[in-house]
Amino acid sequence: MKSFSVSQKTSDFAVAIVPGEAIDTYGVGKVVASTNPEFDKGDIVVGLLNWGEFTVIKAGGMLNKLNTMGFPLSYHVGILGFSGLTAYAGLFEICKPKKGEKVFVSAALGSVGNLVGQFAKLSGCYVVGCAGSKEKVALLKEKLGFDDAFNYREETDLNSTLKSYFPNGIDIYFDNVGGEMQEVAVSNMNINGRIAVCGVISEYLDSEKRAAPSMIEVIYKRIKIQGFLAGDYLNIFGDFLSTTCDHLRTGKIQPLEDISDGVESIPSAFISLYRGQNIGKKIVKIAEE
Amino acid sequence: MKSFSVSQKTSDFAVAIVPGEAIDTYGVGKVVASTNPEFDKGDIVVGLLNWGEFTVIKAGGMLNKLNTMGFPLSYHVGILGFSGLTAYAGLFEICKPKKGEKVFVSAALGSVGNLVGQFAKLSGCYVVGCAGSKEKVALLKEKLGFDDAFNYREETDLNSTLKSYFPNGIDIYFDNVGGEMQEVAVSNMNINGRIAVCGVISEYLDSEKRAAPSMIEVIYKRIKIQGFLAGDYLNIFGDFLSTTCDHLRTGKIQPLEDISDGVESIPSAFISLYRGQNIGKKIVKIAEE
Repeated sequence: MKSFSVSQKTSDFAVAIVPGEAIDTYGVGKVVASTNPEFDKGDIVVGLLNWGEFTVIKAGGMLNKLNTMGFPLSYHVGILGFSGLTAYAGLFEICKPKKGEKVFVSAALGSVGNLVGQFAKLSGCYVVGCAGSKEKVALLKEKLGFDDAFNYREETDLNSTLKSYFPNGIDIYFDNVGGEMQEVAVSNMNINGRIAVCGVISEYLDSEKRAAPSMIEVIYKRIKIQGFLAGDYLNIFGDFLSTTCDHLRTGKIQPLEDISDGVESIPSAFISLYRGQNIGKKIVKIAEE
Repeated sequence: MKSFSVSQKTSDFAVAIVPGEAIDTYGVGKVVASTNPEFDKGDIVVGLLNWGEFTVIKAGGMLNKLNTMGFPLSYHVGILGFSGLTAYAGLFEICKPKKGEKVFVSAALGSVGNLVGQFAKLSGCYVVGCAGSKEKVALLKEKLGFDDAFNYREETDLNSTLKSYFPNGIDIYFDNVGGEMQEVAVSNMNINGRIAVCGVISEYLDSEKRAAPSMIEVIYKRIKIQGFLAGDYLNIFGDFLSTTCDHLRTGKIQPLEDISDGVESIPSAFISLYRGQNIGKKIVKIAEE
């Protein structure tokens, strides 16, 4: 049994890539043999594992025993792992939402975006998400409780689109895409608006597609644009975990996973991620227990 | 006697422009007649005054008696006024410099930039400024105590320029210009870098010349880009004033003023400001006492 997190940002985890060695990623697995007295055969563990059925973890590797708390293993590489912490830290530590504020989330069905929207709704915010298909828009509104959502691929004038969805302006923009969407978000932002910059799929795919937001608006509206990585917020991991587990148990948050099976699905998992085809957290399951 | 602050951002002061009425600006003057018991003939006052020799202030106008504390009146529209508060709030409230950090200031001989650099030096930072002439570069290094300075007009590759002045990276960028300089500052920034966006002369002059900083770097280096206006920091005006007065009295800070005389100099004052020809705070003096 082994599940991997698939991320646009595998370098989140400061992986040293040594020629000839396997590249690690964040995953859960079960110990099949151990010479380390801290780990016993059968222990469920989480940490940096190879992209394969078995991983040899050497001394100094990042590996911890995992208390599953009764949740599926896949949750621990997604909603209860770095994706969840990213959403939680970006929203609460950087954007600090207040009840009634207007929140916009791009790539809102991604592993992070869907949780940002759900956390923001639980904070009493008005939340609009954008995604890349009708099916996704329906999911955002019907399953995840977003107040509204739109398919950006159908819009020809994103500035007007945001104006129509936010007639009273945007207070918080959780940016998973960069590019033009960030520019129009700045144009539709209220005074003291906050942008958490979490992902820039537009730049990953084409470095020319950079956002050029109006700095005049950034000044006059006192906008904050803040990049962040979840790894800086391990100090709040405990708070995040207990809050999120509570919400999962009471059904206030819906986990959203997109799981593919087998080592052979790894390339297609990455391709679908970069094409924005995943619905929620993209996970590769290598083996059943 | 009346002195005005000349600013690229006169709308800082939320001036309502009514056709046929004069446009206000921030200035000091002397009361020549008053029907308001709070003001007596001869009082020195500061607030929103017309661009002319005399101003009639109606009830509800922004006007306060000024305690000059022994300093020239011109200081109170510059180093001890909004320019000083802008530098102080932007540096200390947004950028929070720590001893030994590397600070870059653009438009470093402007009304705000020169003070940012001087405050940063007093905080134990390494400070480099850029300006638009050899004469200005010499002033920055010789009169204002900047560690280094360069003439951006002489540089053909700003990215390499910043790399050579900051071989160990930039921690704080106080941005008075926007545009390409912001992009290369982001590229040369250290982890947890902070950018206070104070002015964007590049955008004021040409809205196409927007900065398009790499958001990938903003994320991985956890960079904060924060717009601000001094008016939001009136709560620290007292701290700012007492600190700055102390530094002026002990000679630790040099005031830098560029004063022109007479109502007829108002247009040329603005033109020189937008051309970047001013050395320090641009002030128009309308009348002697």
